[in-house]
Amino acid sequence: MTLADLAQRLRGEAIGPQDYVVEGVGTLEAPEEGRLCVVWERALLERMAPSVPLVAPVGWLDGGRFGVEVGDPRTLFPDVLALFREKVSFPAGIDPRAVVSPGARVDEGAYVGPLCVVEEGAVVEEGAVLEALVYVGRGSVVGRRTHVEPQVSFYRGTIVGDDVLVHGGTVVGSDGFGFVVDFDGGHRKIPQTGAVRIGDDVEIGACVTIDRGTVGDTVIGDGTKIDDHVHVGHNAKVGPRCVIVAQTGLSGSCVLEEGVAMAARSGVRDHVRVGARAQVAALGGVIRDVAPGAVVSGFPARDHREHLREEAALSKLPELLRRVRHLEARLAALEGEGTE
Amino acid sequence: MTLADLAQRLRGEAIGPQDYVVEGVGTLEAPEEGRLCVVWERALLERMAPSVPLVAPVGWLDGGRFGVEVGDPRTLFPDVLALFREKVSFPAGIDPRAVVSPGARVDEGAYVGPLCVVEEGAVVEEGAVLEALVYVGRGSVVGRRTHVEPQVSFYRGTIVGDDVLVHGGTVVGSDGFGFVVDFDGGHRKIPQTGAVRIGDDVEIGACVTIDRGTVGDTVIGDGTKIDDHVHVGHNAKVGPRCVIVAQTGLSGSCVLEEGVAMAARSGVRDHVRVGARAQVAALGGVIRDVAPGAVVSGFPARDHREHLREEAALSKLPELLRRVRHLEARLAALEGEGTE
Amino acid sequence: MTLADLAQRLRGEAIGPQDYVVEGVGTLEAPEEGRLCVVWERALLERMAPSVPLVAPVGWLDGGRFGVEVGDPRTLFPDVLALFREKVSFPAGIDPRAVVSPGARVDEGAYVGPLCVVEEGAVVEEGAVLEALVYVGRGSVVGRRTHVEPQVSFYRGTIVGDDVLVHGGTVVGSDGFGFVVDFDGGHRKIPQTGAVRIGDDVEIGACVTIDRGTVGDTVIGDGTKIDDHVHVGHNAKVGPRCVIVAQTGLSGSCVLEEGVAMAARSGVRDHVRVGARAQVAALGGVIRDVAPGAVVSGFPARDHREHLREEAALSKLPELLRRVRHLEARLAALEGEGTE
Repeated sequence: MTLADLAQRLRGEAIGPQDYVVEGVGTLEAPEEGRLCVVWERALLERMAPSVPLVAPVGWLDGGRFGVEVGDPRTLFPDVLALFREKVSFPAGIDPRAVVSPGARVDEGAYVGPLCVVEEGAVVEEGAVLEALVYVGRGSVVGRRTHVEPQVSFYRGTIVGDDVLVHGGTVVGSDGFGFVVDFDGGHRKIPQTGAVRIGDDVEIGACVTIDRGTVGDTVIGDGTKIDDHVHVGHNAKVGPRCVIVAQTGLSGSCVLEEGVAMAARSGVRDHVRVGARAQVAALGGVIRDVAPGAVVSGFPARDHREHLREEAALSKLPELLRRVRHLEARLAALEGEGTE
Repeated sequence: MTLADLAQRLRGEAIGPQDYVVEGVGTLEAPEEGRLCVVWERALLERMAPSVPLVAPVGWLDGGRFGVEVGDPRTLFPDVLALFREKVSFPAGIDPRAVVSPGARVDEGAYVGPLCVVEEGAVVEEGAVLEALVYVGRGSVVGRRTHVEPQVSFYRGTIVGDDVLVHGGTVVGSDGFGFVVDFDGGHRKIPQTGAVRIGDDVEIGACVTIDRGTVGDTVIGDGTKIDDHVHVGHNAKVGPRCVIVAQTGLSGSCVLEEGVAMAARSGVRDHVRVGARAQVAALGGVIRDVAPGAVVSGFPARDHREHLREEAALSKLPELLRRVRHLEARLAALEGEGTE
Repeated sequence: MTLADLAQRLRGEAIGPQDYVVEGVGTLEAPEEGRLCVVWERALLERMAPSVPLVAPVGWLDGGRFGVEVGDPRTLFPDVLALFREKVSFPAGIDPRAVVSPGARVDEGAYVGPLCVVEEGAVVEEGAVLEALVYVGRGSVVGRRTHVEPQVSFYRGTIVGDDVLVHGGTVVGSDGFGFVVDFDGGHRKIPQTGAVRIGDDVEIGACVTIDRGTVGDTVIGDGTKIDDHVHVGHNAKVGPRCVIVAQTGLSGSCVLEEGVAMAARSGVRDHVRVGARAQVAALGGVIRDVAPGAVVSGFPARDHREHLREEAALSKLPELLRRVRHLEARLAALEGEGTE
């Protein structure tokens, strides 16, 4: 692809040799000739050798630099990558080594890979791709153009929307963790009779667990993105467009309203509500409702600035102990004077 | 099922129209006519429209409310759910697409689903169910009526008791994490020669890892319930009737005595013992032995009330810093007076 | 195996009956006759009944004790275990129930187990073992003598070195977690076009996730050992000979230099560098670069001794509050005197 082609596709302007051939996208750590780097920070631009083709903001390509100038390189970064990505296509049809129940319905425009199992009453919609070794339980639905990577399980009754991407090793619909303590200290299982419903345009990482509801469903809203190793407990309601980073845990019956961001290894206690567009910092543990738009951190999670003040004070604590000891001695001396 | 039938099964008393038909169990968030709600808190009862059938404590169904009165609704909640749950039954026999070694023994009353692998010397006992894509290694035993969900692995020599439920993506018997540091800074593997033994009536969540012992076995005691994403290290001994909530980690050779409760994302250091019926709060990290019956929290885990006092004091720390600064100024002023 | 045989193999000296038969290795918790215990601590030695055969340091086997004396029992522990371990061998060849693309290359000295899937362009080198239900994506390479346990997925383009061991349920090459926030608050996926490269002599635990790079690769260096439930984000560079204990999380583009040790459930923020041979304590959360050789703990991770001082001070905080209140009262009294 030439610089001129690229400029056209990105609706930008080619600066430099129009017929320069770009072979791919380069890394910022090891830029190479022929490989495009996308920059949106001045400091990064300075580090780039002039021989590296760039996508950069309007007016940045001077002093011998060349490439394509665009309005907002950051927003175009996905598009640049998409231009050079290796496309993998899947044929429509059912691989002969898949095990598909006669009572399942697989759209003729869907692909079911080798060694998948699709149970009675399940539906695989048009354009859906099940790669190898995927399990789709009874009555589950895999939506249109939804892509399921190897070794994923959807337990019975899981409903997955359109344009969803689910990564390997993920389990959707396992039982919620619910027991009644018996008189003898044993634990009797509460049957988990609900299911899991996943909206459209959701991405779910690898080794994620989403438990089915006890009564009623666990719900993942449209456009929500879930990273690897996240746990979602029974009956949680995760609003549309949430972002949930790796190793986070959402307990049973918690609610994440629209656009909530949970940073890495954060968590929410059961039955707690996190308001729209609130942000929970990494390792933050929410145990009380969080107001819409709030930024919280720490455990128990509290206002982020307040938490930072406490952390700063904590680092002064050993010195504070010494100061108080000193005060006590001085005060005792003064008091001694008074009684003389 | 009519109210009268229901009362008989729950050994309670039907209040209201005896032939009212109950179709299922409803959610407390969105109660519906025809769907039973089980309540054991007054506040919940008040919120219920009179048109919703209830299971409630004796004497609570008045003022137009109807349903079944029972002694202890909470304890009966599992039974109520079980009455309406969709029953899935599995035929006895081996699916023709399963791969079962001629040297394995599968009881004729067991079910081995499609694309399972059962290795040489393994035993699948009567009434056991292996759903699809389950791996049972050499010499492993799957006990009576034990139910194994899709995509589970039992490495060689794993012994699983009766009436156990294991959820998808779980790995039992992987190597413990043990290395000897060599002179050159490299790490030489310590062979992991033990196995994993799981008692009766155990439940294990999705994406759980239980490592085999280095020498001797890792043991999960009868009646223990383990949630998703829990890690159990080599040679851990988890006593009977423990409850271990999601994302918890048990290090190598730790001991949990009978009835220990580990809340979400808690942990225990290697070789540490947690006494019978002790409770570790969410995110608590145990690094020293815990006395039986103790309640601990924080990291390092300490007495829960003490930890709460520290947390409360911490929130006053920024203010405390100001107060000490003020004290210092006032004291300096007094000392100045004294020297005048 | 007799004591004399054992001494020869361990290059030590047999003390006691040379033809005593050793049947295996015993546990330190429940030592038995006939089963060897390896001891390198005096306290452990004292606890051992004289009837138990031992491997111990030179000069320790007196007072009726017997076994083999060696220079450094700890270093020999892996060798002792290896002598008695049950060897499992795999035949060369492709199981007829495996699904191997005609465009893949499986060395004739490799083993591909039942229900594995090996895609177009993949390579399985000499001596490699894929146990059952393993997925090897397009163009992936599994190195010589590398052993892959059941239910592992290598996404397309994953390169795995020689003598690697990968445990069950692990996913290598899933997409990194990268999105661009759109004007409407939605999240547009950044295509993940890199791959994962794993060096030689690496061990990877069960249910581990290693994401592919966005541009360029995620790299796991030679001799690195990774425990269960670890997450490695896109473009992370994990240097040779690192040790990463269970439930740890490495964020995107972080760098671990040579020989870094990450204790259980620790973590590193994205784009942060941890210097060679640095150690991060359990639950430590690194958010700034760590110097080579440093020992850090806490969140945010800081010098370990400093952190311990803060923790110690924290436990005195409730008492400190009381002391300050007392100081204030005494000072007010003094000030009152002054104004009298």
